[in-house]
Amino acid sequence: MSDRPAVQRPETMPETPLLQRFIALVGEKNAMTEPSDVAPYLTENRGLYHGATPLVLKPGSTEEVSAILALASETGTPIVPAGGRTGLVGGQVPRDDGQDVVLSLERMNRVREVDPVANILVADGGCILADVQKAAEAHGRLFPLSLGSEGSCRIGGNLSTNAGGTAVLAYGNMRSFCLGLEVVLPTGEIWDGLRRLKKDNSGYDLRDLFIGAEGTLGVITGAVLKLFPRPLGRQVAFVGLKSTDAALKLFERAEKLCGTALTGFELMPRIGIEFTSRHIEGVRDPLATPHDWYVLIDISTSDSAATADAMMTTLLEAALGDELVEDAVIAASIAQQTEFWHLRESMSDAQKPEGGSIKHDVSVPISKIPVFMREAADAVMAAMPGARICAFGHLGDGNIHYNISQPLGADKADFIGRWREMNAVVHAIVRKHGGSISAEHGVGQLKRDELAGIRPEIETELMRRIKIAFDPAGIMNPGKVIDVP
Amino acid sequence: MSDRPAVQRPETMPETPLLQRFIALVGEKNAMTEPSDVAPYLTENRGLYHGATPLVLKPGSTEEVSAILALASETGTPIVPAGGRTGLVGGQVPRDDGQDVVLSLERMNRVREVDPVANILVADGGCILADVQKAAEAHGRLFPLSLGSEGSCRIGGNLSTNAGGTAVLAYGNMRSFCLGLEVVLPTGEIWDGLRRLKKDNSGYDLRDLFIGAEGTLGVITGAVLKLFPRPLGRQVAFVGLKSTDAALKLFERAEKLCGTALTGFELMPRIGIEFTSRHIEGVRDPLATPHDWYVLIDISTSDSAATADAMMTTLLEAALGDELVEDAVIAASIAQQTEFWHLRESMSDAQKPEGGSIKHDVSVPISKIPVFMREAADAVMAAMPGARICAFGHLGDGNIHYNISQPLGADKADFIGRWREMNAVVHAIVRKHGGSISAEHGVGQLKRDELAGIRPEIETELMRRIKIAFDPAGIMNPGKVIDVP
Repeated sequence: MSDRPAVQRPETMPETPLLQRFIALVGEKNAMTEPSDVAPYLTENRGLYHGATPLVLKPGSTEEVSAILALASETGTPIVPAGGRTGLVGGQVPRDDGQDVVLSLERMNRVREVDPVANILVADGGCILADVQKAAEAHGRLFPLSLGSEGSCRIGGNLSTNAGGTAVLAYGNMRSFCLGLEVVLPTGEIWDGLRRLKKDNSGYDLRDLFIGAEGTLGVITGAVLKLFPRPLGRQVAFVGLKSTDAALKLFERAEKLCGTALTGFELMPRIGIEFTSRHIEGVRDPLATPHDWYVLIDISTSDSAATADAMMTTLLEAALGDELVEDAVIAASIAQQTEFWHLRESMSDAQKPEGGSIKHDVSVPISKIPVFMREAADAVMAAMPGARICAFGHLGDGNIHYNISQPLGADKADFIGRWREMNAVVHAIVRKHGGSISAEHGVGQLKRDELAGIRPEIETELMRRIKIAFDPAGIMNPGKVIDVP
Repeated sequence: MSDRPAVQRPETMPETPLLQRFIALVGEKNAMTEPSDVAPYLTENRGLYHGATPLVLKPGSTEEVSAILALASETGTPIVPAGGRTGLVGGQVPRDDGQDVVLSLERMNRVREVDPVANILVADGGCILADVQKAAEAHGRLFPLSLGSEGSCRIGGNLSTNAGGTAVLAYGNMRSFCLGLEVVLPTGEIWDGLRRLKKDNSGYDLRDLFIGAEGTLGVITGAVLKLFPRPLGRQVAFVGLKSTDAALKLFERAEKLCGTALTGFELMPRIGIEFTSRHIEGVRDPLATPHDWYVLIDISTSDSAATADAMMTTLLEAALGDELVEDAVIAASIAQQTEFWHLRESMSDAQKPEGGSIKHDVSVPISKIPVFMREAADAVMAAMPGARICAFGHLGDGNIHYNISQPLGADKADFIGRWREMNAVVHAIVRKHGGSISAEHGVGQLKRDELAGIRPEIETELMRRIKIAFDPAGIMNPGKVIDVP
């Protein structure tokens, strides 16, 4: 594992007068220094990163965040913003030298307002995604962002990473749902950009610059979010196919027939069905015989369930007739719709009992999916005979979670030790096809240097100039996204 | 008119060795210095601005644009990028001191590629919008940006102004259709950001910073654009109502019933129907009796015309039954659908024979439309008795073109001389309701200083820092969008 990011133990830092000044800004009961209290803020779910901090601050208002950042700028204290801390690239983990102070938004967790006429919801940066979804639902509206971690991830983090998930095909990434932001700048100044307008061409697009900046340009403390009408009809199908070429052709037909009603088009390999059937409770293979590839199709219609069902039937009858698909089952109930999605969403967890898994979060133009999948499989199998490729994901977005489970009987530590090597193998094919090695999870610590090596030099240079223009003291989440010498 | 932007005559500048260096970069036949050749580049459609230039350059490639900007940076020569020059805020007009060189993209007008599987089109920055629409149609796809000037405006300008138009409700502004950009930076460096990916979280969002920057941060020379499935069904209706409150309620119902199938929801006042019936060939009032307000509803469905028609009938039968609308007619043919849209799209032109018109391009949260319309009308009539308010536009986007025709019998010049005064009256109401005074036309010269006075100071300061970081020599479209001291 010598080539992986360093993993270090946390260290307790002695309290200093400077830390006391920070603590005074939020009050003793909203500041944590005990190692056992601080420990959860030093790790992330994959166990790739472990940092250290002398202090976790939990401000209760935008003004308190402002006071913290003003003091941080004055004293050159690095600040790591934390939301639900579910990120997968180490963006939320402090560095390991024990100098970074963690600023957690967890107390700023209110839905400030819902306006169902304007289809708008205003939330604190620390509001949990599921709470936003529920507030929208209570007003008969849909907030379409949906991801595995929705019960704990927070809106500020969703915005800072431009989160994706399972409904991007119809609704877009988090960026698409945001009308306005409230941001505390590294200097402590508050930018009130909480606009509620669908159209506003009145200057440079600062909003989209803060979105996806992973807390390196400021702290998102509030947001105006777009709501949508709840679809009145839905149908889900599970389809077996011979190849990813067939899956792509089926996607083209589905898009043509359904337009914006096509909400999900998820690709899965045979091995993923085997892993989930074997390890996940309640999952069974929905089809009678095995197929090399599968897709889950989700159609949501504005008018009625009958329309969604009719669309799905039309699509699949024609595809079966033309032998484009080998077999298909349309959900007979809402419970079965949920079952199909449960299978798809368990695909990552189902790999854990199979040993180590080396992950990639990549995207290519949709038309390149089949050739990418073929070439990547050839390259991976040549580099590591016996590797079990469980590559699945959002075909409709060109976004594949290209996961590799260890060969049967392999040593897990040896396998994981080849993480960077296997990344290089897969990412070379991604780049050949004009793809991205960071499709939806972001940059953080994990991909900062690899991306700096891949990106056009002028692009990294422009990012550096923006970083310096916004954060001249270099206090905002340093070491993440972009390295400023 | 002393308070309006100064209007000046062009002056011919003597050719200098510096100009010869610029001319050598594109060749004599692609450089213009004769006053009669240069004249069209010095004006804009509303006649508010008139500038001067010694030279118009028409580069034929990204490399030539790069060479021009490199020389401009080296010599401190101001550059004004020009596309179709249909903008309404003076962004495309050189300043009047005769120092600005115009860089026209008109020769870079190719559709570089169409990929109907990936739903992608790659165009030069100087490609005419209508040519992009046609190329998409030839491949059975839709490029949804649609505006009055589509026969002459160009993609680089559409991107630089984040153009809106008549299909924003369903598809969004130009920003929503762009996956990647090629930009020549003020230094002459070329940023190849021509990505084709639906998902890419690999750094700061430079793309959205260049979009809407009106050529002040660089020159957009190419773009990867998103295509959409062509809707298979469409229906259009023309509706008479008592009030804007009723129009808003009808919009809520339409959105709930139709979801993303609701493509247009346009508000018009009685006077607009009178103006168009009186002055525009082929326009007649679609309804038998007069109503205070009208809406045009456009429904486009992915599956069939029958679905669109059924949705429209369901919506309007219920609204007539509840007396929410006074009268309605559903188009009986595609020709009639076109007629209804022709009426709506002629509303600006129909004002010209009525004398002077003072214009506003404003947006408010949709739920505030009725109160905004009432308060603005009261304020305008108090300031200018007899004013004829022809406020119409994209109710579904909260975007109203708040035009005021001169009182009957008034002197046109006196009336136009009150432009800034009436702007102040209307914009005060817009700001009270959290709106934007620059909804879709942009900033340019027209709104630069007014917006600087309205915007939070920190926002203007961040814009300045970005401008300086990207264009330290200050050569890119100086005087537009943001004033850098």
